[in-house]
Amino acid sequence: MEKKYVIGMDYGSDSARGVLVDANSGSIIATAVCNYPRWTQGLYCVPAENQYRQHPQDYIDAFESVIKEMLSSASDVDVNNIVGISFDTTGSTPALTDENGVPLALLPEYAENPNAMFILWKDHTAIVESDEINELARSWHTDYTRFCGGIYSPEWVWAKTMHVLREDPSLCDAAHSWIEMCDWLPALLAGKVKPTEVVRSRCASGHKALWHESWGGLPPVDFFEKLEPMLVKLYGNLYKDTYTSDYCVGKLSEEWATRLGLTTNVSVGVGAFDCHMGAVGAGIEPNTLVKVIGTSTCDIVISPYDEIGENLIPGICGQVDGSVVPGMVGLEAGQSAFGDIYAWFRRMLSWPLQQLLNQPEYASLDGKLIEDLQDKMIAALTEEAKLLPQNDVVATDWFNGRRTPDANHGVRGSISGMTLATSAPEIFKSLVEATAFGSKAIADRLIENGVKIDSVVALGGISRKSDFVMQTLANVFNMNIKVSAADQACALGAAMFAAVAAGIHPDVEAAQKAMGQGFDAVYQPDASQVEFYQRLYARYKELCEKTENF
Amino acid sequence: MEKKYVIGMDYGSDSARGVLVDANSGSIIATAVCNYPRWTQGLYCVPAENQYRQHPQDYIDAFESVIKEMLSSASDVDVNNIVGISFDTTGSTPALTDENGVPLALLPEYAENPNAMFILWKDHTAIVESDEINELARSWHTDYTRFCGGIYSPEWVWAKTMHVLREDPSLCDAAHSWIEMCDWLPALLAGKVKPTEVVRSRCASGHKALWHESWGGLPPVDFFEKLEPMLVKLYGNLYKDTYTSDYCVGKLSEEWATRLGLTTNVSVGVGAFDCHMGAVGAGIEPNTLVKVIGTSTCDIVISPYDEIGENLIPGICGQVDGSVVPGMVGLEAGQSAFGDIYAWFRRMLSWPLQQLLNQPEYASLDGKLIEDLQDKMIAALTEEAKLLPQNDVVATDWFNGRRTPDANHGVRGSISGMTLATSAPEIFKSLVEATAFGSKAIADRLIENGVKIDSVVALGGISRKSDFVMQTLANVFNMNIKVSAADQACALGAAMFAAVAAGIHPDVEAAQKAMGQGFDAVYQPDASQVEFYQRLYARYKELCEKTENF
Repeated sequence: MEKKYVIGMDYGSDSARGVLVDANSGSIIATAVCNYPRWTQGLYCVPAENQYRQHPQDYIDAFESVIKEMLSSASDVDVNNIVGISFDTTGSTPALTDENGVPLALLPEYAENPNAMFILWKDHTAIVESDEINELARSWHTDYTRFCGGIYSPEWVWAKTMHVLREDPSLCDAAHSWIEMCDWLPALLAGKVKPTEVVRSRCASGHKALWHESWGGLPPVDFFEKLEPMLVKLYGNLYKDTYTSDYCVGKLSEEWATRLGLTTNVSVGVGAFDCHMGAVGAGIEPNTLVKVIGTSTCDIVISPYDEIGENLIPGICGQVDGSVVPGMVGLEAGQSAFGDIYAWFRRMLSWPLQQLLNQPEYASLDGKLIEDLQDKMIAALTEEAKLLPQNDVVATDWFNGRRTPDANHGVRGSISGMTLATSAPEIFKSLVEATAFGSKAIADRLIENGVKIDSVVALGGISRKSDFVMQTLANVFNMNIKVSAADQACALGAAMFAAVAAGIHPDVEAAQKAMGQGFDAVYQPDASQVEFYQRLYARYKELCEKTENF
Repeated sequence: MEKKYVIGMDYGSDSARGVLVDANSGSIIATAVCNYPRWTQGLYCVPAENQYRQHPQDYIDAFESVIKEMLSSASDVDVNNIVGISFDTTGSTPALTDENGVPLALLPEYAENPNAMFILWKDHTAIVESDEINELARSWHTDYTRFCGGIYSPEWVWAKTMHVLREDPSLCDAAHSWIEMCDWLPALLAGKVKPTEVVRSRCASGHKALWHESWGGLPPVDFFEKLEPMLVKLYGNLYKDTYTSDYCVGKLSEEWATRLGLTTNVSVGVGAFDCHMGAVGAGIEPNTLVKVIGTSTCDIVISPYDEIGENLIPGICGQVDGSVVPGMVGLEAGQSAFGDIYAWFRRMLSWPLQQLLNQPEYASLDGKLIEDLQDKMIAALTEEAKLLPQNDVVATDWFNGRRTPDANHGVRGSISGMTLATSAPEIFKSLVEATAFGSKAIADRLIENGVKIDSVVALGGISRKSDFVMQTLANVFNMNIKVSAADQACALGAAMFAAVAAGIHPDVEAAQKAMGQGFDAVYQPDASQVEFYQRLYARYKELCEKTENF
């Protein structure tokens, strides 16, 4: 039998990454990355206002670059045997589109207008609008937020599209619909971008757009009319049905086949969010908590419908049938800062080094030497922290607000229990413990609401870089933590979905079995630390309670 | 009329300082400082256990050095015109003495025994013993701690002498009494060290030894017998009467006159604690809060007896008739860390700089350059902090426990309200604010209990070094803060007492008027900050409440 290949595309916050994979064995044949060119220059963003926008052309440019680089480095692969492509992306990352489904920023008149671009997941400009959605949802006969944790986030599509329409009413004429990045890329490749033709992702719709089968799709139009009349026109060009990512949107269009050097025999799969496909790539199974750990975390669990039933789990980021693996309820949660907290501490400790660099009397100093030290700082803190005895310094992990359990952008980070003898490595240790405690608080919320969790799988940068963090996590959870061997679990997950959409494997489980890469580390709880961490976790919970409304 | 001169001796934690002063004008004729030689080498101390001991010979060596240096630099002063000397010292800093009143460490057999030395104020080895004193005092028919704030501290004489006797029962035979440093130095010079002859300071006795007129002196012997039978022998060689510092212990002994090159015409005044005499040197008046601000603070108020009456002020370090100025009730309070908190933060931020110094690849680096940067760090943080807008980061000032209000060595420092954008200067600013809030909490406690406070006078290192800290204090107090012009207010205060003891001035007020140096800065509250600081102070109090029993 001739080998078949699939492409998994992973669109992160800063870059797009592709993997070209042997669809039967899972072997990675080629991989390539491309930073978004405009984004890299800092265009269209106002960090002080938490405005983060990405130009749709960035996604196209990165895509073409990645595909061409992979194909050229895999010159012995016959392009006729490349049969599938699927996308995972950040989200909710939506853009307004015109009547043809074209993101407005691709039209010349809006090419430089940030409100016409994709609004990146971490953009926080729509806080007012999310408050309004929450208020209206509370007073409506049906609370449409109940399957996405009961609190609508400013990071999600309805708040964001409301916000840009209000900011920029001049867009109202041109705007006919909106689209999530994870739906736009497959639609573009399959030539189905018109609002009526777009195949919408169950994952994005269910977790971010208030879509649910029980109320027949999106909430009814009168809800949105009451919220913001400008939404009504868009609503008319949206959707009722959604699709899981094993579904094929269509074949690669002639235009794109030519442009990329592929064939029209490529099946394009339905997109989903990065962590959802990442969880599949990392080997998610029922009742496994998969944590994608980087600057922040995304936590995914899948649970059979007959186990979770009608249980509503409050304060998470949604529970959506089929959002991860078809046939299972996908539960999403996450911490709004994880590695970012360590980076914050490094930044603070770097203040004197920056002073060194900035003062004229130190001009003779080799700047590289200082930068080098900054680069090594977290590793150095880690080495010291490992040697420290148990102590009572405790912190919360709310330096970027709290995503789950119970979204609250207003909560703040605290560190307590310090003395004049408290050292920088001790504070670092307390911050590592705080991030582990935040993880446990999420798991506890799920368990308290009937979700079984019997193992934890970690992926993402920190899971591979810091054995100290992972060991702390194992001690705090008192559970084995397995680290996925997949270097690029999200892209690999997308490739698995592509293989299913292309019919190589009958379902996601079969694709995982054939293409999975297993685990390359298992952290076991250190029995001598478990009891201590139970006590310290109780202190963490107490500090959380004390500072929650502070 | 021929000029008369007096000597003020100020024994701090690390060194003794003397001033030779024109007793009529207050002009400083000469000044000298000498570090304690054994202490400087770190002898007899175990910082990890908070054991801080000072050898009595250190005090003698420093004294001789200071007097000789002053006399040689003031060669035009006729020694016959030097007519008084008084001492202020740290305290409670007691030592066990033999039957002749000699501190045990001056006997050859105990010369190297830390338990036979003076136990420096900040020694915290007697926590168990102070707990026992507090427990017994609560259950006794009279609570003998009620005039010293209701909580007996491990820093005070009874806890400390109990502790060293228990640690080292071999000392029991030799130990016949104990003596405070501020009593021993005058006694030594006047040749009255025998336990029956020692003139005891009202200040030390009233604030630290549970002495009060209303129960006829020290608490009765059965109290101490119950506490620790080993104390009974010492009790028999202690005292009933105490004296204010305007009183003359006696004339300089022949031996010491010869040894120092002075005459036996020098009156030796009763000693007191440094901050008490410092408050006098800085110009204390009724209802003025004098804050001695250094690594920690000592706060002193004097209040006419007919105003304060029988009001017991809970949670301060004592209220003693005549402990500061004869005829007034002297109230003592204090913060257990002030400048030490800024130094802690500097130490933490220096961690990467220390890393720089320690790593071999940076051996080429000029170490002085890094030290220089550390030296400048607080100034650099201050410059940045001054430019910051108002924000919600708030800290407690409990990094070294809490002295007042309500002594509690178990409370800890907290910082709350941080985000990923919180910078090192913002945290520094919150720590400065925390120390100012801690000051206000003490003033509030006094005011709530009927003590009038209508102005604040600051002295000590920080009051002269940091206009940012002083301005913050003025904004938080919403009161003018005057900074004493006396560079060495404690030693000057001692000289004022020496002038009264020698009969040059009829009383302390007259000595202050003649010899005082006024103020060299007044910080006025910035009206645009006052309301903000009222709100932030409320947050500080809330954080204190939340973390008090944490």
